[in-house]
Amino acid sequence: MAKYVIGLDYGTNSVRALIAETRTGAEAAAFVWPYAHGEEGVILDSAQPDLARQHPRDYAQGLEESVRGALREAAAADPAFRPDDVIGIGVDTTGSTPLPLDAQGQPLAFQEAFADEPAAMAWLWKDHTAHAEAAEITARAEKERPAYLAKCGGIYSSEWYWAKLLHAARTAPAVFEAAHTWAELADWIPAILTGTDTPEAMRRSICAAGHKAMFHPAWGGYPDEAFLADLHPGLGRVRRALPGQAFHIGQAVGTLTDEWANRLGLSAGIPVAAGAFDAHLGAVGSGVKPGVLVKIIGTSTCDIAVAPLDPAFPDIPGLCGIVPESVLPGCLGLEAGQSAVGDIFDWFVRRIAPGGPERGGHESLTREAERLRPGQSGLLALDWFNGNRTVLVDQRLTGAILGLNLQTSGPEIYRALLEATAMGARVILERFEEYGVRIERVVNCGGISIKNPLVMQIYADVLGRPLEISRSAQTCALGAAMAGAVVAGADKGGHADFDAAAAAMTGVLEQRFEPQPAAVETYNRLYALYKRVHDIFGVREEVSGGSDVMKELLAIRDEVRGRPA
Amino acid sequence: MAKYVIGLDYGTNSVRALIAETRTGAEAAAFVWPYAHGEEGVILDSAQPDLARQHPRDYAQGLEESVRGALREAAAADPAFRPDDVIGIGVDTTGSTPLPLDAQGQPLAFQEAFADEPAAMAWLWKDHTAHAEAAEITARAEKERPAYLAKCGGIYSSEWYWAKLLHAARTAPAVFEAAHTWAELADWIPAILTGTDTPEAMRRSICAAGHKAMFHPAWGGYPDEAFLADLHPGLGRVRRALPGQAFHIGQAVGTLTDEWANRLGLSAGIPVAAGAFDAHLGAVGSGVKPGVLVKIIGTSTCDIAVAPLDPAFPDIPGLCGIVPESVLPGCLGLEAGQSAVGDIFDWFVRRIAPGGPERGGHESLTREAERLRPGQSGLLALDWFNGNRTVLVDQRLTGAILGLNLQTSGPEIYRALLEATAMGARVILERFEEYGVRIERVVNCGGISIKNPLVMQIYADVLGRPLEISRSAQTCALGAAMAGAVVAGADKGGHADFDAAAAAMTGVLEQRFEPQPAAVETYNRLYALYKRVHDIFGVREEVSGGSDVMKELLAIRDEVRGRPA
Repeated sequence: MAKYVIGLDYGTNSVRALIAETRTGAEAAAFVWPYAHGEEGVILDSAQPDLARQHPRDYAQGLEESVRGALREAAAADPAFRPDDVIGIGVDTTGSTPLPLDAQGQPLAFQEAFADEPAAMAWLWKDHTAHAEAAEITARAEKERPAYLAKCGGIYSSEWYWAKLLHAARTAPAVFEAAHTWAELADWIPAILTGTDTPEAMRRSICAAGHKAMFHPAWGGYPDEAFLADLHPGLGRVRRALPGQAFHIGQAVGTLTDEWANRLGLSAGIPVAAGAFDAHLGAVGSGVKPGVLVKIIGTSTCDIAVAPLDPAFPDIPGLCGIVPESVLPGCLGLEAGQSAVGDIFDWFVRRIAPGGPERGGHESLTREAERLRPGQSGLLALDWFNGNRTVLVDQRLTGAILGLNLQTSGPEIYRALLEATAMGARVILERFEEYGVRIERVVNCGGISIKNPLVMQIYADVLGRPLEISRSAQTCALGAAMAGAVVAGADKGGHADFDAAAAAMTGVLEQRFEPQPAAVETYNRLYALYKRVHDIFGVREEVSGGSDVMKELLAIRDEVRGRPA
Repeated sequence: MAKYVIGLDYGTNSVRALIAETRTGAEAAAFVWPYAHGEEGVILDSAQPDLARQHPRDYAQGLEESVRGALREAAAADPAFRPDDVIGIGVDTTGSTPLPLDAQGQPLAFQEAFADEPAAMAWLWKDHTAHAEAAEITARAEKERPAYLAKCGGIYSSEWYWAKLLHAARTAPAVFEAAHTWAELADWIPAILTGTDTPEAMRRSICAAGHKAMFHPAWGGYPDEAFLADLHPGLGRVRRALPGQAFHIGQAVGTLTDEWANRLGLSAGIPVAAGAFDAHLGAVGSGVKPGVLVKIIGTSTCDIAVAPLDPAFPDIPGLCGIVPESVLPGCLGLEAGQSAVGDIFDWFVRRIAPGGPERGGHESLTREAERLRPGQSGLLALDWFNGNRTVLVDQRLTGAILGLNLQTSGPEIYRALLEATAMGARVILERFEEYGVRIERVVNCGGISIKNPLVMQIYADVLGRPLEISRSAQTCALGAAMAGAVVAGADKGGHADFDAAAAAMTGVLEQRFEPQPAAVETYNRLYALYKRVHDIFGVREEVSGGSDVMKELLAIRDEVRGRPA
């Protein structure tokens, strides 16, 4: 008798419920519900380009809509399917996406007084309003608690929990005072499903706490109260109400309540795993393990690797998270990433390129860009359109395009932007290896890895490695579903651990992208220039100038043009 | 009885004949004939983006078409107008635009064997195929003849006469061997009009020879034969056939032949002034004199100033010409410029921006860009899309756009490109002043100065000075016509000298562009960043890095956004 698990995947624009078969990982059904508020689910403010919020009502409504939708589809696809055969639930979300809760654990945004107040919403991962506060936290930690920074890349980001809370305390005191605590979205969804959503009962995700809130077992959990209270007394108050422990995805936070079982159409009492971030569960759904780097490539990119738990493991500068058990139980979770990838390509198509999306957009630009050879355009771009997450950890960096001339075409710029993200990916991979993280295979997942062979070939050529593609098109939801299977346990038709779950439920496509030697050689030269510009504009120390960068680009361009096609 | 002079203005895409009244400078008629060959008159090669040639048949045919057209229009506008009242002709052309001639002075391109050979055409000013040869000439002159370089900015350009000849000698030996000499277009037009077009009789323009071919009285004219022959024996041969003297625009090269008088419908025997470059005669037509900088702003920009002839005048690094009498008799001519200005704006509209020219183009982008305040976009661009002529004298530099983010819009980029050209203009103005060239007024002419108030306001704000606009819309042709009036002389109804001609024939519009203090202050800050990036990418010595450039841009952006509009 087939058993099923549900993976709930809270993305930037929508929530997806995936129903997966536990023995094979096969998708029985999936249903996507786009958030109702804002612009494609994101509440923006034209006066504050750094602001990005979401309404928690979308999260709650989306839970019901997506699960019920998936159950309907599973039943339609297979008359033998029964909701009672769903044995566990896992949850992945964006993050750091904290939302303020009252003393009962209700989102403040549910109160009439705060219904239209952006500060009372969820602060979406890509909200960068807190850059000044992030710098302040970094400066204070550098002086007083350097250990805190060492596990999160040396610089605290404006995307993260404490920076956002501090910004709220400073700029929206009414909201901040009304908030009893702030939950990550990854904490809140499992909590409401299991009735553990009071601030006292809520079990926090080690993935969210460790990567975004400086939680680490080495200092007994969250940062100490004195440190936080010095930043703002209100942070000290929030800290006092936080628990000392956090949970990995192999642990259940509770079981499905009668109320939610009823609302979703599932059996009460099935276990719900602790939540984690989408990328981390995407890595799980792609079969991450020591030696395998998983790249989740979409609007932004996450790079997830794991290493055996080892007290001597080095602090890798610029990695935005080195957290025990944040990805897999028993392993150190290592997170890196790029703040914008697909978003950059979309920017060009939507805001800049001739004719906009209705005149071909990505398809026609890709067709033209495919005809160009590496180095041919003389262009070099920096992929910092949404800041740089790894290795510079600096949201105040911006994108650049160098090498423009009067003949430069739209497809040339488009390709240069694709290449720029590949160069950024290489910086990350080299940083891992520099610090002894073994990377024998690179497995890719996420929309771009499936839909855009040009991007994947450029990545293979820039990285100089074969690239594999995860078999599932929904690896984040699949990883969440795997967590549901592990907390259900082998006895109930789930799995004893993630090794077993990965062996049964994950895999890669036959198609691989192999690096092409000529392209690799050209990209090695372009990458050296990229690194120069990267360091000139991104590295804080004074470095020597890049005055021959453009000539080098032209020399490469001319050489490439002189070669037979 | 009114007397008239004709100014012939050979531009990049067309030739214009202007008939001007000598007492007032008033335009009696003007006629433009677009060149027939190539793309808007320019012969291109998609495999060699640096190549830009023109067919000399267009020059000869255009002479007849434009003068006859202008005479028709003058007669139509004023029944009293008689072609016999035209008392002199002046000529301005693009340059350095050399063309190879046979022993009789006929363009090689007129021979059937070379009819389709690009090397036998005129090598248009913006042809950059000779960048390697320019570097070679620079290197050799640095070692062996540093004085040659000191008068032309320290670096010999790929746009110039000897670089183009050397490239022809290397890459098109059949053409080069068949060529008895190479004339600048500014030499050739007056020569054919006056029947002085044999290589022996041809009178060369001091403007062309001095600014582009290292001609200087200090070493007796053109570079010495040994120096040139060492570069290539063929250059030694060309040098031997060149004269020892060159002519300024106050000197006639001869009088109109019967044949050309007949073809054009003018009186034989009227004097034809020595030719000069368009920008230089544009400055004359704008009333250039010591203390007045004239900016000719079009697809590219020239900055022309003059200083009293003084043997102690310093060699100004990066100026691409310090030549006695190249602009006005009795003055040192000083030339600087930007290799692309309007061309950059066109690039964005034609090749990149949404919808292209048919959907609004410059007009709609200008409308949107006008609404933006200085610094608001966080963007900074380098205006090197066609290299940098002054002060870096380096055609192998390229354009750049920094500060891009996911919200960056087309109008923001468009405005950043306008601003970048203004920053480039400021570098030039500061270089003049640094070396003691007095600049009390800035008079602008050329298409952009008349048609684009947004550009002019940005220039006033970036330069921090009031900007005046030349009264004539055709200052280059007017300057050429003034040369015709001076060579005709006061007795014939012309003028005794250029002071008299300028007083009678030139003037400025009432409308001036005044710098706005708030914009000046923001642009001073942006200019400091521009200079940093300029030096990082453009200056040959190692300089310290620009790692805080982007943060500064954002700080300015945020500050500006926080201000009331």
